[in-house]
Amino acid sequence: MSIRSPAAFVTASAPGKVILVGEHAINRGQPALSVSIGLYARCRVAPLKTHQFRLHSGKERATVGHEDLTALRQWVERQRAAEAYSEIQALAARDYFAPAKYILALMLEHGLPTGLSIAWASEIPTSSGLGSGGAAFTALVAAAGALLPEPPRLEQCAAWAHCGDIIAHGGIASALDTQTSLLGGVLRVTSHGLAQHVPAAPGLALIVGNTGVIAATSAVNGRVRRWLSEAPDSRMAYFQTIGTLARLALPLLEAGAWQPLGHLLNLNQLILEKIGVSCPEIDQLIAAALGAGACGAKLSGSGGGGIIIALVLPEQRQDVAAAIAAAGGSALMPAINVPGVTIQKQPSSLRRINQ
Amino acid sequence: MSIRSPAAFVTASAPGKVILVGEHAINRGQPALSVSIGLYARCRVAPLKTHQFRLHSGKERATVGHEDLTALRQWVERQRAAEAYSEIQALAARDYFAPAKYILALMLEHGLPTGLSIAWASEIPTSSGLGSGGAAFTALVAAAGALLPEPPRLEQCAAWAHCGDIIAHGGIASALDTQTSLLGGVLRVTSHGLAQHVPAAPGLALIVGNTGVIAATSAVNGRVRRWLSEAPDSRMAYFQTIGTLARLALPLLEAGAWQPLGHLLNLNQLILEKIGVSCPEIDQLIAAALGAGACGAKLSGSGGGGIIIALVLPEQRQDVAAAIAAAGGSALMPAINVPGVTIQKQPSSLRRINQ
Repeated sequence: MSIRSPAAFVTASAPGKVILVGEHAINRGQPALSVSIGLYARCRVAPLKTHQFRLHSGKERATVGHEDLTALRQWVERQRAAEAYSEIQALAARDYFAPAKYILALMLEHGLPTGLSIAWASEIPTSSGLGSGGAAFTALVAAAGALLPEPPRLEQCAAWAHCGDIIAHGGIASALDTQTSLLGGVLRVTSHGLAQHVPAAPGLALIVGNTGVIAATSAVNGRVRRWLSEAPDSRMAYFQTIGTLARLALPLLEAGAWQPLGHLLNLNQLILEKIGVSCPEIDQLIAAALGAGACGAKLSGSGGGGIIIALVLPEQRQDVAAAIAAAGGSALMPAINVPGVTIQKQPSSLRRINQ
Repeated sequence: MSIRSPAAFVTASAPGKVILVGEHAINRGQPALSVSIGLYARCRVAPLKTHQFRLHSGKERATVGHEDLTALRQWVERQRAAEAYSEIQALAARDYFAPAKYILALMLEHGLPTGLSIAWASEIPTSSGLGSGGAAFTALVAAAGALLPEPPRLEQCAAWAHCGDIIAHGGIASALDTQTSLLGGVLRVTSHGLAQHVPAAPGLALIVGNTGVIAATSAVNGRVRRWLSEAPDSRMAYFQTIGTLARLALPLLEAGAWQPLGHLLNLNQLILEKIGVSCPEIDQLIAAALGAGACGAKLSGSGGGGIIIALVLPEQRQDVAAAIAAAGGSALMPAINVPGVTIQKQPSSLRRINQ
């Protein structure tokens, strides 16, 4: 494949996400509701004259050839077909760039140039439930997608970005993070197809409280699978109940009925506690948020640590943020319901100026 | 006051109740939804020629004069005014008939004859959350009320019967049990005024599973008060969330959306677990019911033991009942949504035949 001329680079900026309702249940056939947040992962992709991929993210660097990517893709697809999730977890643990490499390998099939410099920068806290990985993969797909011979369809971008999360999360991942990052807004996400935007009244406001506790999504997901497998007949009801919460939330979200919507968040949290994915630090931040008057609060993401979200009225924002901080968390007040990934193409002349 | 002639007796039959949504929250300003069940307490009241009240219920018997009743009423009212709940609990513990005596004392003010034979019989399991006490007091009020010079208004009957539960439960009780027994049907009950009938689609079906664990309502209520007092700012949110569940349940009940309504029962149960009023035996029966396909399940009543209710589709009834029995509970399949208290007056001639 040829390096395109004139040389140019593309930067994509993809938002993180929080989950209003539905983590863990979305992997079991239930709908979930997600919201994009105004914290971004950025990916810059620039053509290289050499046939190699140079990857750079923070302290991590790697250089790899397209044959290596293809070999990795074939290996991953064998493991996925065999449901060898421990193999995929091990890959993700030993190779920071494995998810990106898998995505690049898939995009090579669609004419991606074989020499690219790819660099990420992110303001999204990692391993906290904010979808930092999904945003990074979405930004990669959007930026690299702009260098394909034909612009990829949205569904194709969603599928590629999702493949990044599949590797990062150890073989199984919902498409919630990547689709929210891709599409932005408030979304109803299911396990099939593209998420749908859902109407939300103006004024939806969330405080994010970060426990600072790191818990690997793949490990927490494994715990949930074991919990369910111990008594699947009775325990599946709790995931189905989360699905009912997601459905009941829709009219409240549209009407701006923040107090009852907050109560649905409380209820979702109680199910997550039942499932066993909360932790004392989450419980403390939730108690702090509720004690400060939040309409409702829950963990967001896979749990075991990471963040909580508190649904607040505008006048409660400062009090709830202060209470979260006093309880040992880091409070963030990001913009929410922001647009999905955006790309910016730079001509080669600008590239020289900026570099 | 004169004994009325011709002598007659009155029998009243009052149903028990289960709580679809809202125990403990109703004491904190939230609405609750209750349903009458086709298990009955019966009270037969017959005039006596002597000025005494002869009380008889199972192995319990007592004879008391109207002056004693008045003295008890005055003492109770002093304790209630002083919020001396431990005194009222002690009274209820030492005098089985204290609630009935208090009711009779109140009715004496409205012209109740001063000589009555009063006998109860009940098919409602006691201390299990089925409202056996409330039904007994409601039956008393209805039967004795028929002997008053003027028929008491419904609100007056509700207030008298409620006073029985106030004594029985140690000084504080919701009017849910007695109003459900009085009015029957499916009710939205609040802490003020008479409960309102709410529309319910045909086909609402519940299985009752009795753990056989006896827990005094007054003791469980005390635990809940302490739990709330430890962190009232954050924990009151859980009672408010129960209120939201009650409101969300109404359209589902009317539409016959049994599966999501069942999920609301699951959610109510999770809050009750959070509050600390579930117990391992309840948890087991709930898991059994859900495992057998029930739409949802929760404890009903004050908890700490007693019963669960499982919302079922008709085709699930037998499976769910069998699963509850296999898990160590007693399964009941009572009629539900039955009419409230009914009275039957017997002329003196019939009385002789029946006695």
